[in-house]
Amino acid sequence: VKTLIAVIGGRKESHELLVHAEETGKEIAKRGAVLICGGLTGTMEAAARGAKAEGGITVGILPGNSPTDANQYIDIPLATGLGLARNAIIMSVAHAVVAIGGSYGTLSEIAYALQYNKPIVGINTWNIEGVTTVKNAHEAIHKLFAEISPQG
Amino acid sequence: VKTLIAVIGGRKESHELLVHAEETGKEIAKRGAVLICGGLTGTMEAAARGAKAEGGITVGILPGNSPTDANQYIDIPLATGLGLARNAIIMSVAHAVVAIGGSYGTLSEIAYALQYNKPIVGINTWNIEGVTTVKNAHEAIHKLFAEISPQG
Amino acid sequence: VKTLIAVIGGRKESHELLVHAEETGKEIAKRGAVLICGGLTGTMEAAARGAKAEGGITVGILPGNSPTDANQYIDIPLATGLGLARNAIIMSVAHAVVAIGGSYGTLSEIAYALQYNKPIVGINTWNIEGVTTVKNAHEAIHKLFAEISPQG
Amino acid sequence: VKTLIAVIGGRKESHELLVHAEETGKEIAKRGAVLICGGLTGTMEAAARGAKAEGGITVGILPGNSPTDANQYIDIPLATGLGLARNAIIMSVAHAVVAIGGSYGTLSEIAYALQYNKPIVGINTWNIEGVTTVKNAHEAIHKLFAEISPQG
Repeated sequence: VKTLIAVIGGRKESHELLVHAEETGKEIAKRGAVLICGGLTGTMEAAARGAKAEGGITVGILPGNSPTDANQYIDIPLATGLGLARNAIIMSVAHAVVAIGGSYGTLSEIAYALQYNKPIVGINTWNIEGVTTVKNAHEAIHKLFAEISPQG
Repeated sequence: VKTLIAVIGGRKESHELLVHAEETGKEIAKRGAVLICGGLTGTMEAAARGAKAEGGITVGILPGNSPTDANQYIDIPLATGLGLARNAIIMSVAHAVVAIGGSYGTLSEIAYALQYNKPIVGINTWNIEGVTTVKNAHEAIHKLFAEISPQG
Repeated sequence: VKTLIAVIGGRKESHELLVHAEETGKEIAKRGAVLICGGLTGTMEAAARGAKAEGGITVGILPGNSPTDANQYIDIPLATGLGLARNAIIMSVAHAVVAIGGSYGTLSEIAYALQYNKPIVGINTWNIEGVTTVKNAHEAIHKLFAEISPQG
Repeated sequence: VKTLIAVIGGRKESHELLVHAEETGKEIAKRGAVLICGGLTGTMEAAARGAKAEGGITVGILPGNSPTDANQYIDIPLATGLGLARNAIIMSVAHAVVAIGGSYGTLSEIAYALQYNKPIVGINTWNIEGVTTVKNAHEAIHKLFAEISPQG
């Protein structure tokens, strides 16, 4: 069974945040974990591109009914047809979460992660109690893996 | 067709906030609107009690599969079986939203309301840009109805 | 708390089946129960029209995000945004079910009703083991109420 | 991007049907497609075991909130927390469907597949118009791939 790490964040982010997202995707793949994301553009696409660059597996949990909505780096496009309720699903399925930038959609996911008591770290994202601020992808994934596999 | 106003907030709140919730339920019913809430205890129960005191209709959108999970003031207990994804549904169905106190579940709902671009006011709740702070139930409902029926 | 009876069936049905749906809506309202349906046209609209003719309350659980998708006889239009997954919700929330005609959407609902072990009767609908065939609205509602309130 | 083939069926099936499920999982993996299933026991487990025997990727879309509910052959356990509404999701995300045996849960999925207009074949399952009956796993996957990639 694979460890599932979600990367969440906005569709329109600065180049700097997209680089963080791509690096995060790489770190996830290097650990042998699966990238879970919303499957669309921006941070989702950057993270998926990073994961594929390291030979990882990428899952996109899409709001609509068409798998072709997924960005080109998604291996497994899950077209749920649930609309924004898919945000809840992304957080339910993830073992741990990295939030990068983001707007209200990301805020709903952060809230769900905290309600589900999932480990969550953030890079330049909503300042919500319970989210651990980290500086970069390496620190993000290092901290999350320390929490989900204490002996690792 | 009825106007649907959601009251969201935590299960464990101070007496003062529960009074605000009950007053909000009353104001909703006085306007002939339907109270939408999560159907459980705390602010949800207080709001439903208020709405029933004024002869209103109350809908509880429950996370579980059993309608008996609803508090005693719910007329229409909708046992969705969706778990926490029901938070997204409450915000999708409401025409406007009053947030009172609350924890992470309420935060997820606030985020959804803002993502859906629904009018939302708050009493002593999460300080998120886009939520209009109000002092009491009367001001809450007055502001929301001004937004959803400009000519009213 | 109200008893919630779902009427399910197709959007395009014969005049005869629509009359059965309208009569079923009337019987539900006469019993003081709430009509739950998919909120759209055909049997859903006929059932809602019947329920309103007897002063009942009607709830439409819609697939899309817009309450204006509901037919004109729906009091409480719940625009879930869940797409076809809303079929599962209709069956989860209903205490008992009347199926009238219908196509694949109705079949998914019948299957859910049986999986949830809800009492279900059918008028000229899918022939699935577990669905009790009835001749008309009166027999449908009589049988369902006998099951959900044995002492009634 | 991967092709996603769902195998649906009951938790308690005959040895013969479980062999069909396992063979179907093998055929899916041999084609380089991803197995989508409900992640639990019976046909779901047999199909996942088959897919893993051929080095495939297996996704389990679970009703509960715990990834440990998945059978041991699931690589990517998606604990949706949606309850039975997850049946709708399995059918929304699949490109094509193989139904093997099954009870009411399988019937709801067959109905959804047909409502979504997904190619679907069946081995000893519900006799519903629109489901193409096949004799074995090889015929099942051959027919489905002919439909979803006509030039293949």
